[in-house]
Amino acid sequence: MVISLDSPLDMHLHLRDGDMLDIVAPLSAETFAAGLIMPNLVPPVTTKEAVCAYRERILEAQAGHRFLPYMTLFFKSDYSPEFLESVREEILAIKLYPAGITTNSEGGVSGFDLGELSPVLGAMSDLGIPLCVHGETGGFVMDREAEFIPVYEMLAQNFPDLTIVMEHITTKDAVEALDRYENLYATITLHHLYITLDDVAGGLLQPHLFCKPIAKRPEDRTALLNAALKAHPKVMFGSDSAPHPRDKKEAPGCAAGVFTAPIALQALAQLFDRHDALDNLQAFVSGNAQRIYGIVPPVKEVVLEKTPWLVPDIYEGTVVPMFAGQSLEWRIVSVG
Amino acid sequence: MVISLDSPLDMHLHLRDGDMLDIVAPLSAETFAAGLIMPNLVPPVTTKEAVCAYRERILEAQAGHRFLPYMTLFFKSDYSPEFLESVREEILAIKLYPAGITTNSEGGVSGFDLGELSPVLGAMSDLGIPLCVHGETGGFVMDREAEFIPVYEMLAQNFPDLTIVMEHITTKDAVEALDRYENLYATITLHHLYITLDDVAGGLLQPHLFCKPIAKRPEDRTALLNAALKAHPKVMFGSDSAPHPRDKKEAPGCAAGVFTAPIALQALAQLFDRHDALDNLQAFVSGNAQRIYGIVPPVKEVVLEKTPWLVPDIYEGTVVPMFAGQSLEWRIVSVG
Repeated sequence: MVISLDSPLDMHLHLRDGDMLDIVAPLSAETFAAGLIMPNLVPPVTTKEAVCAYRERILEAQAGHRFLPYMTLFFKSDYSPEFLESVREEILAIKLYPAGITTNSEGGVSGFDLGELSPVLGAMSDLGIPLCVHGETGGFVMDREAEFIPVYEMLAQNFPDLTIVMEHITTKDAVEALDRYENLYATITLHHLYITLDDVAGGLLQPHLFCKPIAKRPEDRTALLNAALKAHPKVMFGSDSAPHPRDKKEAPGCAAGVFTAPIALQALAQLFDRHDALDNLQAFVSGNAQRIYGIVPPVKEVVLEKTPWLVPDIYEGTVVPMFAGQSLEWRIVSVG
Repeated sequence: MVISLDSPLDMHLHLRDGDMLDIVAPLSAETFAAGLIMPNLVPPVTTKEAVCAYRERILEAQAGHRFLPYMTLFFKSDYSPEFLESVREEILAIKLYPAGITTNSEGGVSGFDLGELSPVLGAMSDLGIPLCVHGETGGFVMDREAEFIPVYEMLAQNFPDLTIVMEHITTKDAVEALDRYENLYATITLHHLYITLDDVAGGLLQPHLFCKPIAKRPEDRTALLNAALKAHPKVMFGSDSAPHPRDKKEAPGCAAGVFTAPIALQALAQLFDRHDALDNLQAFVSGNAQRIYGIVPPVKEVVLEKTPWLVPDIYEGTVVPMFAGQSLEWRIVSVG
């Protein structure tokens, strides 16, 4: 069996910087046509110069593959409308992090005071810049996303013309919120379609599956799966592929993040195939995002066939992927 | 401020075997008067000879400290009444593990068929041998203990004269079950009084706090704290101190278990002091267990004072304790 995907998109991608960028950028660029690049570097990407310079570093690192990095800016409530207008052409979205909620998010938003956020959100709405949100409170780890949903609702109600993307959703509650507000959208990762907390901590502890938001309950995964497999029109694939060096993953104080970029399309094909939903994969990995963001990505045809493929144990001796050393049922046969 | 504890007891203790036994036995024997020794060795302790031989190895390993190892047998549904009678004098309790639910529990009980379990449980009831239970189903990790409670209820109803100890309880549900059946008791660990899942996986991932049953929600910890701090008469301290070599804790596939034996009394004093409950610590760490099990442990007076104490990073270069490298507010000043 063979399928062909046109211009697959990864609408939530961490490419990091420096040596790690050099390792992971080619792995995304090889099979995806484009990706939405997260801005949580150290320091975060908050200026036009930083956006452009980071894009240049990505283009250089992607080793000649045809791949378009859609850039984002790290949300700050003190951006001026003039600044936003000046940076509009360089970015596809602005990413909002609650302060301290995940890797390199210390400079994010503390509290969600509408008065403080309104000038920037109003300007983004006027300029048509989508807002991508890491939606977690500082509460108990299993409740953080559900507790954040009132913030999504407050934003959606107050800025009805702002496109708001709930990033890497992990709960039934978030899936249900999608249908309550016209301007709420979501990305779903690969790993949250496969795992629950049981896979992280139900048997032996698996640091390579430890991520934020943490994988939730079986009924949450079911809700995510239902949305993805039918390619719910407001849902897009975003891997949240988040590489860390192996020594940082396999030590106490393990950093959060699952590295999925080079295995994502194969594992998605396997999942959609197992659920007889291959017909919807194109919309989930590209069509929906093109419509929601109004983008026309580079042309790229990725052909996959149903043949076992052994996932490498590690990439470049540094980054351990999801399914490391395991066999997936689908492999990529050509990229054109 | 100084307190004195008479004959502190650890009613749920893993001393392991071989080199690890030699490391950890003296650490428990130094400050506790006695402990209930878990039988999940490889192979599990299922014969009178194995019980006696393991006790000899413990006595040899405890380095001259006055410490009584109360022995247990690994529950098997095919023990004969005659065997149980013959082993009665050598053990304090029998420990039941659902098959495969935790470290070295592969030979445990599969399913809880009353017909299959009744001969042994009836004989235990007749002989006055308490049943200690690792109460978890094979369900979702956060639900396993709550899902197991109907099994506790079935056992408690069918064997009203059998003393049943819900080991290392972690949930509000289990605390509530305590008061519904006269013959249900419980142990509570140190770590479940201190941590929730947030401490394991809410920030960076902390393998040294990964245990089974996994730490639960804040409201669960509150229920456990309330029971322990008032020294609920059916609740006993059992550390479930479960050492693993550092290299097994700090690698993917990290084994479950928190090592608390050498810091337990200090950390309990700190906790009870912070909650103005020091008056109840004696009952929680000794009195309740003496009454519930009908035991008279060796005399041992442990004096603690409120003076900062730095917990070692590691013991014997092998085992990392809870609170490693951190300061506790209480230290042990003498053992007599």
